[in-house]
Amino acid sequence: MIDFACRNGYLFLLKFSLIHTDGKGRAGVLGTDRGDVPTPMFIPVGTQGAVKAVEPRELEEVGARIILGNTYHLYLRPGIEIIERAGGLHRFMSWAGSILTDSGGYQVYSLSELRELTEEGVSFKSHLDGSLHCFTPERVIDMQRSLGSDVMMVLDECVPYPCSERYAIDSNSLTIKWAERCKRQMLRGQPKYNADQALFAIVQGGTYPVIRENSARALVELEFDGYAIGGLSVGEPQEIMYSMTEICTEILPAEKPRYLMGVGTPENILESIDRGIDLFDCVLPTRNGRNAVFFTREGKLNIKNASFADDFSPVDGACTCYTCKNFSRAYIRHLFKAREIMAMQLASIHNLSFYLWLIRSAREAILEDRYGVWKAERMETLSAEVADAVS
Amino acid sequence: MIDFACRNGYLFLLKFSLIHTDGKGRAGVLGTDRGDVPTPMFIPVGTQGAVKAVEPRELEEVGARIILGNTYHLYLRPGIEIIERAGGLHRFMSWAGSILTDSGGYQVYSLSELRELTEEGVSFKSHLDGSLHCFTPERVIDMQRSLGSDVMMVLDECVPYPCSERYAIDSNSLTIKWAERCKRQMLRGQPKYNADQALFAIVQGGTYPVIRENSARALVELEFDGYAIGGLSVGEPQEIMYSMTEICTEILPAEKPRYLMGVGTPENILESIDRGIDLFDCVLPTRNGRNAVFFTREGKLNIKNASFADDFSPVDGACTCYTCKNFSRAYIRHLFKAREIMAMQLASIHNLSFYLWLIRSAREAILEDRYGVWKAERMETLSAEVADAVS
Repeated sequence: MIDFACRNGYLFLLKFSLIHTDGKGRAGVLGTDRGDVPTPMFIPVGTQGAVKAVEPRELEEVGARIILGNTYHLYLRPGIEIIERAGGLHRFMSWAGSILTDSGGYQVYSLSELRELTEEGVSFKSHLDGSLHCFTPERVIDMQRSLGSDVMMVLDECVPYPCSERYAIDSNSLTIKWAERCKRQMLRGQPKYNADQALFAIVQGGTYPVIRENSARALVELEFDGYAIGGLSVGEPQEIMYSMTEICTEILPAEKPRYLMGVGTPENILESIDRGIDLFDCVLPTRNGRNAVFFTREGKLNIKNASFADDFSPVDGACTCYTCKNFSRAYIRHLFKAREIMAMQLASIHNLSFYLWLIRSAREAILEDRYGVWKAERMETLSAEVADAVS
Repeated sequence: MIDFACRNGYLFLLKFSLIHTDGKGRAGVLGTDRGDVPTPMFIPVGTQGAVKAVEPRELEEVGARIILGNTYHLYLRPGIEIIERAGGLHRFMSWAGSILTDSGGYQVYSLSELRELTEEGVSFKSHLDGSLHCFTPERVIDMQRSLGSDVMMVLDECVPYPCSERYAIDSNSLTIKWAERCKRQMLRGQPKYNADQALFAIVQGGTYPVIRENSARALVELEFDGYAIGGLSVGEPQEIMYSMTEICTEILPAEKPRYLMGVGTPENILESIDRGIDLFDCVLPTRNGRNAVFFTREGKLNIKNASFADDFSPVDGACTCYTCKNFSRAYIRHLFKAREIMAMQLASIHNLSFYLWLIRSAREAILEDRYGVWKAERMETLSAEVADAVS
């Protein structure tokens, strides 16, 4: 609660230090009341107050420092009030590290039915039971106060891909108005659990460079603790995603963290670090893991392939995670074939371990001014397919 | 590999010390090459080479010393040869404690189709793909040699309940002949992984006291490292199960361990300890856990009950397991409602913890000559139902 900067009447509650840059790649430290988060960092996704199949102590073990909770899901189930009565999301789910919560905007866009946007907010039907609900900028801040996340996100509209320029312009001006209302609501309130809560804005604008630029500039003008780039990785070609990211990071202030929402593959992450991104979240490591696809230092590996039936080597020989230290490809393949729950546990532990190792390694490379060479080397193996024991 | 007793040409490979008795209750230590197993002991079930949703390190943490693997399941998938090439079941599944494997007899009876029993062995169709297979007494010993279990079981026939006296007599004489062939096959072979393997016989005889007695006497005459009681908990009234157990333990030698297969509820276990049983295995703690039913020191608790929605106390306040130390009833209920895999992980960890705590407490009570009083106290709460926070 100390050492914050006070500027234009706004308390900057998040400490972010940019330690070193290599090209556009950035190594920093983001400090919350739960501890330091070295950046670049990957944020495992705990949608419903749990990272699927991974216990909090295992998250710590694989090197997670910050996880993501989904306001939309937690609002619908178990309900924000339950979590507030539990003493906040950290206590509810027994996670001592940092938590970032999204605002629900993206889930309203991707999951709910019968969405109705007005200036006031967004009305939607629950994907669980069809019941009617309404989120306003003020309401999502209040909910995130009750969740007690270390980083809150503003309410935004995520436009689909493709989308008309007209729609993207109108939507973006709504998103900016909502961001301002979120900030105002934030300044009116206080944290509930004696730990500071920062607020990030979200740059939108579809795939239109000028709208993206305007969005970024307007939000920077409003001043937030950090800036996310939203509305990407929603179906557009990768090159467009990269160029939109670059347009944003050119404008966003160097001294604030940048978070590319919902991204992505290991390759996406390395390319985006190279364009100045600090934070990422994605369901890919856990979802792919549950589908028997492992990320390894030698490439992707589908453990169900017959060639692994008698392969007694670990999934990734250079990995130090619980899965790789104790179990063979043959055993894990058996667990998947036999539909054992433990298959999903071991796969999720490994894939998160891999992602967090990858991003730690990226940070080291930046600190040692060799990010470009390191990235080129990694990109080659990341796209490979591990086919059998002697790959 | 030392200190075994050699009698009648048979090497007793299992060290069992009976330390103390209290009434018929027995406290002992069963020594395998993987370590000491205090008895009475509960054996978590790892059917397919994994205790469902519980990692080996978590088994250790909850106090498991010996687990069970199913020869029938492992034979069908991944196949005994894969496990042998992995270096045995312990290495395959990364479990450093002891393993007991059943012979497959019970699964052939309960799972497979088109069973055909002959003097030679049993033919059956796989419950997975309908393929034809045959188990003989010699074959199940060879398979268990390849699995490398610390305790092997003989091939037996488990008769259904009810079953005619004639059938029970004939079946039992087949079971005894098979037990003899198993022992002979065992004496012809050697362990494959430099760790001794003991062999337990299985008393059958349905619910006919005289057949049970004859079965027990015949098997004791043949001499085994330990004796199991099979064919119970298959639908017969509990009182019959208890009286059959008692008939067997009256005859079985005091200096050998007794194992009541597939039993059971906490109440069943306490009653059977009181009748001289040392070992138990059952899927109940993990299966009930996956179905949201928790065993606690205050009784059974169905976590899905609405009354737990805002109950922020642990499942069992006196329990020291990971689940109870870190999570509330409200949180675990939410995980079940939201169908999170972690619900099953946390429930299985707790229920195994409870079973192993219960049996450790039983042992302490025996050592302190207060088993009867302790059991009476426990039986009262075990049958209770935890309804809400203030129970």
